[in-house]
Amino acid sequence: MTNASDRLRTGILGASGYTGAELIRLLARHPRVALSALTGDRMAGKRLGEVFPHLGHLDLPMLTKIEDVKWDALDVVYCALPHGTTQEVVAALPAHLKIIDLSADFRLSDVAVYAKWYGHAHQAPAAQKEAVYGLTELKRAEIARARLVANPGCYPTSAQLPLVPLLEAKQISADDIIIDAKSGVSGAGRGAKEANLFAEVTEGIHAYGVANHRHMPEIEQGLTEAAGRPVVVNFTPHLVPMSRGILSSIYVRLAGGASADDLRATLAKRYAGEAFVRVLPAGAVPHTRHVRGSNHCLMAVAADRIPGRAIVLSVIDNLVKGAAGQAIQNMNLVCGFAETTSLEQEPLFP
Amino acid sequence: MTNASDRLRTGILGASGYTGAELIRLLARHPRVALSALTGDRMAGKRLGEVFPHLGHLDLPMLTKIEDVKWDALDVVYCALPHGTTQEVVAALPAHLKIIDLSADFRLSDVAVYAKWYGHAHQAPAAQKEAVYGLTELKRAEIARARLVANPGCYPTSAQLPLVPLLEAKQISADDIIIDAKSGVSGAGRGAKEANLFAEVTEGIHAYGVANHRHMPEIEQGLTEAAGRPVVVNFTPHLVPMSRGILSSIYVRLAGGASADDLRATLAKRYAGEAFVRVLPAGAVPHTRHVRGSNHCLMAVAADRIPGRAIVLSVIDNLVKGAAGQAIQNMNLVCGFAETTSLEQEPLFP
Amino acid sequence: MTNASDRLRTGILGASGYTGAELIRLLARHPRVALSALTGDRMAGKRLGEVFPHLGHLDLPMLTKIEDVKWDALDVVYCALPHGTTQEVVAALPAHLKIIDLSADFRLSDVAVYAKWYGHAHQAPAAQKEAVYGLTELKRAEIARARLVANPGCYPTSAQLPLVPLLEAKQISADDIIIDAKSGVSGAGRGAKEANLFAEVTEGIHAYGVANHRHMPEIEQGLTEAAGRPVVVNFTPHLVPMSRGILSSIYVRLAGGASADDLRATLAKRYAGEAFVRVLPAGAVPHTRHVRGSNHCLMAVAADRIPGRAIVLSVIDNLVKGAAGQAIQNMNLVCGFAETTSLEQEPLFP
Amino acid sequence: MTNASDRLRTGILGASGYTGAELIRLLARHPRVALSALTGDRMAGKRLGEVFPHLGHLDLPMLTKIEDVKWDALDVVYCALPHGTTQEVVAALPAHLKIIDLSADFRLSDVAVYAKWYGHAHQAPAAQKEAVYGLTELKRAEIARARLVANPGCYPTSAQLPLVPLLEAKQISADDIIIDAKSGVSGAGRGAKEANLFAEVTEGIHAYGVANHRHMPEIEQGLTEAAGRPVVVNFTPHLVPMSRGILSSIYVRLAGGASADDLRATLAKRYAGEAFVRVLPAGAVPHTRHVRGSNHCLMAVAADRIPGRAIVLSVIDNLVKGAAGQAIQNMNLVCGFAETTSLEQEPLFP
Repeated sequence: MTNASDRLRTGILGASGYTGAELIRLLARHPRVALSALTGDRMAGKRLGEVFPHLGHLDLPMLTKIEDVKWDALDVVYCALPHGTTQEVVAALPAHLKIIDLSADFRLSDVAVYAKWYGHAHQAPAAQKEAVYGLTELKRAEIARARLVANPGCYPTSAQLPLVPLLEAKQISADDIIIDAKSGVSGAGRGAKEANLFAEVTEGIHAYGVANHRHMPEIEQGLTEAAGRPVVVNFTPHLVPMSRGILSSIYVRLAGGASADDLRATLAKRYAGEAFVRVLPAGAVPHTRHVRGSNHCLMAVAADRIPGRAIVLSVIDNLVKGAAGQAIQNMNLVCGFAETTSLEQEPLFP
Repeated sequence: MTNASDRLRTGILGASGYTGAELIRLLARHPRVALSALTGDRMAGKRLGEVFPHLGHLDLPMLTKIEDVKWDALDVVYCALPHGTTQEVVAALPAHLKIIDLSADFRLSDVAVYAKWYGHAHQAPAAQKEAVYGLTELKRAEIARARLVANPGCYPTSAQLPLVPLLEAKQISADDIIIDAKSGVSGAGRGAKEANLFAEVTEGIHAYGVANHRHMPEIEQGLTEAAGRPVVVNFTPHLVPMSRGILSSIYVRLAGGASADDLRATLAKRYAGEAFVRVLPAGAVPHTRHVRGSNHCLMAVAADRIPGRAIVLSVIDNLVKGAAGQAIQNMNLVCGFAETTSLEQEPLFP
Repeated sequence: MTNASDRLRTGILGASGYTGAELIRLLARHPRVALSALTGDRMAGKRLGEVFPHLGHLDLPMLTKIEDVKWDALDVVYCALPHGTTQEVVAALPAHLKIIDLSADFRLSDVAVYAKWYGHAHQAPAAQKEAVYGLTELKRAEIARARLVANPGCYPTSAQLPLVPLLEAKQISADDIIIDAKSGVSGAGRGAKEANLFAEVTEGIHAYGVANHRHMPEIEQGLTEAAGRPVVVNFTPHLVPMSRGILSSIYVRLAGGASADDLRATLAKRYAGEAFVRVLPAGAVPHTRHVRGSNHCLMAVAADRIPGRAIVLSVIDNLVKGAAGQAIQNMNLVCGFAETTSLEQEPLFP
Repeated sequence: MTNASDRLRTGILGASGYTGAELIRLLARHPRVALSALTGDRMAGKRLGEVFPHLGHLDLPMLTKIEDVKWDALDVVYCALPHGTTQEVVAALPAHLKIIDLSADFRLSDVAVYAKWYGHAHQAPAAQKEAVYGLTELKRAEIARARLVANPGCYPTSAQLPLVPLLEAKQISADDIIIDAKSGVSGAGRGAKEANLFAEVTEGIHAYGVANHRHMPEIEQGLTEAAGRPVVVNFTPHLVPMSRGILSSIYVRLAGGASADDLRATLAKRYAGEAFVRVLPAGAVPHTRHVRGSNHCLMAVAADRIPGRAIVLSVIDNLVKGAAGQAIQNMNLVCGFAETTSLEQEPLFP
């Protein structure tokens, strides 16, 4: 047991959404974190157990409006607010706060790209300059020095973890990357939308956001950096009748004489020693259900029947490694804690 | 109402599997069909309602062993037997019978390719020569003259319906076709296998048969014929937590100066007037749940963000257009009935 | 094929909800119905295929606002409008129209009971007097003479079909009826509500509306009439992660010396010859998936281990026998068509 | 971090089933447990990660046959073997071992009742005498002194936790207890059976084992002890399309002038201070998804509309509080560890 004085006073802005609930689930047992403030504007004045009964046994502060938070009484803030609303909030936060932002607002380093994809000028360009992109395994050193971490999107996490090392190794072509991604429904949040009703989602599958999903520029930004030249990808997300999980099936053209086995070896070497990333042996395929509820990423590589091509498969839990788990991993780095703290749960199967 | 004498005496071999049940569901109201014999070896002696309670209200013959069928009392036979067991059965059937085979046994015209993928020599090479591949919209004339129809696989149907016209039009490259397919679980049949248990399938997705699924040579056979030269494809199937439905997300490279709009126009023209194939307007995406329980195939085309590439989406119900429905469509052709007879049901949604 | 002049000009008010879509699915092939008007206020001006892509192949009128309907051009109207809004609409309809109302507005014959459960006075008490409760198998004669049919609720249909004959036969006690009902999510409609999101419903079950669901007075009204004295029941609905289906597990105390076998015999006799109701033999249990997509009701009776008690199980598809199917069955009666017309589809399984 | 010497050398017999996997998931971080032996007869020689890939990152012993276990090298054994096979195994275990048996073999204290329900004589009547029934919250003292704990069944846990205190308080009648239970599919185990295939279970619900499920005598044994006289119950289990979770909806007759509020107060008092049992306030209903993956039990009480009756609702995760979690809770008691050790995970939602 840790003394209260050893714990960072931590706030979660947007605690009434799925990402907020997942942060609380994972942080509830963190030995160095005290959950001191929870906001949820529409739910202000309610106990968290009314909004998320599965957490009703925890002793937590009431939900408040964001303007009622006492920032001086906090050390760390997680922002789990809707995309587009976070910029002004973050710009107004006092300088002593460490910030882990789970929205898309600070992920694109070029505010012109942001403006193009989101249809309005970025509202906090100064903060944007300070933000570090929080793909933990690939940006560990920068994250450890950051005050503001832009936590990656779920799809971009699942795509970049395998692709960045392969592009850096020049073992795949940068011009022919096809990412067919499949996601559970929780990625769409808890907002009441017809498209996400049970009867609209169960017993079927479909593509959406074809050739224009907002995670595309985030993926391209990371791959462009890895390749050292502009990368344009095919990214086609699909909605699967499941709550959690992302599978990215990635089709790549081999380069530099590499084989599928070479790709697997590159990834295995890059992620050797990582607590959360595991490269499967030849012949094994990852299932999203193998990582459910955990911060794990599993990946695999197979040769294609088309000569000179390979298939890369990558799975994460979109709410954990794709959101709350990676956010905590980043906070652990920012605050100097062991990176795996509070993220040790095994996956839940079945 | 039709007189008994106007009805073809019809047998279903393998009526105790999902495909057999689906044939019965659809044929039960066919005005020119009398279901005269049903076999199900392990279930011989049972009423169909014991095996499939949802059909328990129908007045049907008992399930028998295949050796107890009186072939002289039949005009038409559907074979819904397991792959590999059908060849010898079909070879032994009397010549007066029309045969619609739903197994994979007669789909590959080259018995050497069969031997390679199935690991044993074909047992009925003479019958194989006679077999007509039953992709109805693309082989209508040959099917109408056939005695033995090899009904296509579910994946191959969903992939070839959009790809064959595009290859014939030389609007896509034959060297770079990536078929990321997603299927419901009923495609795996009713056999008791751990991998298909509810708790193994729900709330997750995974690829399987990566680069070695047996539907691959069937797809390549059709595309090779369309392209006029050997075609090798990437075909990567995935198992989705749903009972029915196949979505093929197909990534193609444009050829001959064609655009995505050109591809859509080609498909729209080719399938204009078809009762069961519908090409969606630009911007629309097909869901598998839009065709559930029906013989429909919906397809769509979108431009890729990678210059010179396009995305083709195609959905069917694997048990209907991917199996029993197309089989009946073919029987209607073989027997001279209106092609849509008994296939008029609307999709069931939600 | 039927001539246009043989077809009743039919309108569906509220065609943009699940019940409306289901009416269209089933009526699309009705030989005596022409779908002449479809309303959907928020969707006015759209084609039905934009709202329900699974019906996009049908040649149907555009969705309009209800005030734009030309009542003189219609013979029959289905009202699939939200509860509470239907009374004023129906009161204003011209007298030549036959009306099948699928809302709850005209189901309670006593407007005082309506006011108590719905919290406001009934807005069309005169029309209420005219309304006939449309539980087809039990009210056939009255329905055939009706102009306005109040189509029963889904839960009340599943509960009353088995219970009314047993109460009339005085084989069960009227004082101790416990109805534990389980429903799919489509019963809650297509409105965007957090509680019906996929991620809120999948992989779990819960009771709701405990001891105060609005279908309770409807059930009690029917049972009171059958028993000849006031009946109060336990009715506890549960939400199941499935789109369609209702299972009512009903726990009864035997009366008059009857056994479970006697109950089964009473039901079998009562429903002998019915096209849509089937009483299963001892030992069999009905699954909701055995009736999916069909107008069937399956029921079973088992002895309880508690002496003097029995268990009655009843399943329907909530959107068919529990809504659109029974509505069409009633329209067929009202209009003098064969009762099963357009309702012949077999259940869809798996 | 704990030294190896502080850890109990622990074996899991039957580690290749769902219950075995769940034990490993929960024990993997137990500070006083070393997983020293895992058996799985059909899987002997495999690594656990081949059988359960979600646990592939753990450093665990290979799966062996049960006859290859070195009992001297173990301190504690969990038996997660199939029902009926455990008796002889347990009878042969050396006396120094603490045993937590998760099968049904030692749950019925009267071997005559066992013989009646299981159709054969009990094979280890001496061990049966020693066994303590492990319903932790109700048998804590006896469990703490036990060498052999018979871990309760999932349904019996969910039913007895609320019913035993109410019967002891004489606030409900012992003659009229109706338990309508709903379970996820994992309760049926990982064996390949047609009835548990995805396509057989999804999108539907049905009762099974009506009036003859083997958990009935276990429930009646506990309630008989609580009531002080023989109790016969209605117990009707239903299969729900979900992997995990049990909801028992229990219909009771009030006794001794008690009200529903009194029942709730009795339960709240009885379980005050319990880490895993929570009685919800009036008006709240428990969802199985609120306890998923956790050792929690939530319960609620509501007044019935039938005078003199009440409704009791209780939820658990069948694999945790209904199996592996309670087993660990019992082991903690038996071994003198804090009862909640290794069971602190929050529920996983969505």
